[in-house]
Amino acid sequence: MQALPDSAKRLIEELSRLPGIGNKTAQRLAFHILKTDMMIVNRLSDSLKEVKIKVKTCTLCGGISETKVCLICDNPKRDTNLICIVENAPDIFAFERTNIFIGVYHVLDGALSPLDGIGPDELNIKGLMDRIKPGMEIIIATNPTVEGETTALYLSKKLSEFDIKITRLARGIPVGGDLEYIDEATLIRAMEGRTLF
Amino acid sequence: MQALPDSAKRLIEELSRLPGIGNKTAQRLAFHILKTDMMIVNRLSDSLKEVKIKVKTCTLCGGISETKVCLICDNPKRDTNLICIVENAPDIFAFERTNIFIGVYHVLDGALSPLDGIGPDELNIKGLMDRIKPGMEIIIATNPTVEGETTALYLSKKLSEFDIKITRLARGIPVGGDLEYIDEATLIRAMEGRTLF
Repeated sequence: MQALPDSAKRLIEELSRLPGIGNKTAQRLAFHILKTDMMIVNRLSDSLKEVKIKVKTCTLCGGISETKVCLICDNPKRDTNLICIVENAPDIFAFERTNIFIGVYHVLDGALSPLDGIGPDELNIKGLMDRIKPGMEIIIATNPTVEGETTALYLSKKLSEFDIKITRLARGIPVGGDLEYIDEATLIRAMEGRTLF
Repeated sequence: MQALPDSAKRLIEELSRLPGIGNKTAQRLAFHILKTDMMIVNRLSDSLKEVKIKVKTCTLCGGISETKVCLICDNPKRDTNLICIVENAPDIFAFERTNIFIGVYHVLDGALSPLDGIGPDELNIKGLMDRIKPGMEIIIATNPTVEGETTALYLSKKLSEFDIKITRLARGIPVGGDLEYIDEATLIRAMEGRTLF
């Protein structure tokens, strides 16, 4: 690939740093960029810088925001007595896509993982404590992984001293899933948590 | 997704214009960008603009180049009596990766496709004619598609008036392919073109 112009090589190198984009995809994208209208490429280039300059962390929930307080925390229609705890900011938008959650969020910015040196002090737990009000509901929506479950357990214990309702997401078979291919652990949870028809 | 900051929405929109990148991947990339060091994002942003400003078409072969003549055409070690005709610039680098081709290239910038209004005048054929020298070899390496084959046929006829050797790529079973899954047309070519052991 010595024959590639230096600027094209650099672009391919930078693109292949992105997750899920290997060298071949980066090359395909670079050739696409070369054929694309300059205006559109400039827009992409500018929006990359813009997002880094403008987007900060919401001072309340730890989600992403261009302002001090994010659009969700700032929305008077959202129920601040219902907080959904998630590991990372992208998780917020997974719930937002469902359009059924009317509460607010709290981003831990990770999950407990002693082996990686991530203890309670590394997570945004102090900020959560400041938001607790008697009578509220906290939904612990960490990921169904070892780290996520550990974090959920830790939080549920820590929060049990408050006069609040602590809930977690239902475990069971995913919609559209094929029973034949669903793992045992999930099936066990689905059986245990079976509901009346 | 109303809750996403505007700049993040814009970035997702621009990223999802790229080929093979849908809305979900664009979102994943955008969140990755948000977590990435500003310096690395700036490098990506700058390299996008740089490639558009610097990379031009090689005046000889029609490939990509930062200079008037590309690195391949400009290389005195390359055999200019051996021209490999390809449809598009990326095809050049598919051959370059093999490290066995010592000739130069000629980019048609497409293939004949009457239905799409692409006739010989729309392709870079005039430039090819100017490069023909008696006794040279021309390898027609258009894609094995209807348009590519039509273009190859057209070129082979047009070039037959010159005192040159015209060749094409071998057709047959691809290395690592499984005979059970290879299409009939390819198997027929592999049979017809069988060689002595």
